[in-house]
Amino acid sequence: MEEESSSRSCQGAGSMKWFVGASQLLGVASVVMTGIWMGHYRGGYAWDGTGQEFNVHPLCMVLGMVFLYGDAIMVYRVFRNESKRSVKILHVVLHFLVLFISIIGIVAVFQFHTANRIPHLYSLHAWCGMLTFVLFITQWLLGFLFFLFPGATGWLRGVYLPLHVFFGLVLFALAVATCLLGTVEKLLFSITDTYSLFVPEGVLANCVGLVVVAYGAVVGYVVTRDDYRRPPHPEEEALSVHFKTLTEGGAPSPE
Amino acid sequence: MEEESSSRSCQGAGSMKWFVGASQLLGVASVVMTGIWMGHYRGGYAWDGTGQEFNVHPLCMVLGMVFLYGDAIMVYRVFRNESKRSVKILHVVLHFLVLFISIIGIVAVFQFHTANRIPHLYSLHAWCGMLTFVLFITQWLLGFLFFLFPGATGWLRGVYLPLHVFFGLVLFALAVATCLLGTVEKLLFSITDTYSLFVPEGVLANCVGLVVVAYGAVVGYVVTRDDYRRPPHPEEEALSVHFKTLTEGGAPSPE
Repeated sequence: MEEESSSRSCQGAGSMKWFVGASQLLGVASVVMTGIWMGHYRGGYAWDGTGQEFNVHPLCMVLGMVFLYGDAIMVYRVFRNESKRSVKILHVVLHFLVLFISIIGIVAVFQFHTANRIPHLYSLHAWCGMLTFVLFITQWLLGFLFFLFPGATGWLRGVYLPLHVFFGLVLFALAVATCLLGTVEKLLFSITDTYSLFVPEGVLANCVGLVVVAYGAVVGYVVTRDDYRRPPHPEEEALSVHFKTLTEGGAPSPE
Repeated sequence: MEEESSSRSCQGAGSMKWFVGASQLLGVASVVMTGIWMGHYRGGYAWDGTGQEFNVHPLCMVLGMVFLYGDAIMVYRVFRNESKRSVKILHVVLHFLVLFISIIGIVAVFQFHTANRIPHLYSLHAWCGMLTFVLFITQWLLGFLFFLFPGATGWLRGVYLPLHVFFGLVLFALAVATCLLGTVEKLLFSITDTYSLFVPEGVLANCVGLVVVAYGAVVGYVVTRDDYRRPPHPEEEALSVHFKTLTEGGAPSPE
């Protein structure tokens, strides 16, 4: 069973690199296109409470909560042949980077609102964004407690792992949706009268939205396709606690 | 192995009913709240090219592309003990209903735009919506060809099934995101100056968005949790072609 699963995983690895490559092209494109939108059409960047400080917000959120978040959840598949410990550390570090960049982006928009006497957190974009961010931090802390602190038992880890994976993907989808909401909000505030005339800024921003959706879909495919799963590594299996074997009598979980 | 999987499936069934119940409450709430938003705050419904005809659009799309679409993809889990053929027919019929209601909703917004000389398909909401709808029809037709027409071989069905499941979920997520985009667009067109003042209409519409997100998350959980999977039915297994056994040597797929 293990040999068969391992051989199937090796077959899968061949096509995975194309999907991962495509995801990176889409991810970089979404960040560059957001950079151009804010840099070229919205007056560039600053840290002074003006609209230029606001412009830091979309760039940071697309870079952090979309591109790097997607990469962070793909590492178990992309580095499926590296040691589990190294991949786990990369997973945590990338999520920390997401958190750091997102905080800069969130501070930028709060300072912009305060400086311009705009109420905070009234829109659906803001509600979805704060929900995503608070749950993201909760998920990060729980992941840290369950999988990096030595205190958690194998049984607890085994129970929490599927929830961690599920909520990780749901929050990623919510981050993508929140990014789309922010795009529409910004367009309707900035080019209210010309958006419906297919002006270049509107078309560019719509394309940012589609690229972000495509990135999300490709990441989703890579992390859910069965034969891209990390194959069992015999030396790690021998060292680690076999949750499923102990609790359910099934095969050990490869992730 | 089959017995063990079957006993695990029975354990899972106990909690599934709570999640399915919660999903139905959230789904009905999202439709009712959208109905109140359009009925009470936006002047009700008509079919005359005015804003009242537009109001048919959100109601149809939330009912069709969100609530019924979610129910349609849950049927294999909810009716896991019914015959596969009956569940398959229910799955197709519900999707047909989604298509029918969505077409009414889409015609409503096109007629409203034409009557009021508003350009069609310029916004990110429209782009995402059309993308979702065209892919939804494609997926429906492919599903019909592969799984209901007798021409498709077991091997072809086995290859297409994981793609059908993956794209079904991605399109559902995109439908939820498109609904959020529509909510924000409508708010920024209707209550431009008062949205930031937390007026009741804005708060209600934001809540519609959150309820839709919660519905999407619960549906996603029910259709991806491993032990909610349809258990193997021996009499069907004996009759059907075992794709995986024939092609890969693994256990037959339960769905």
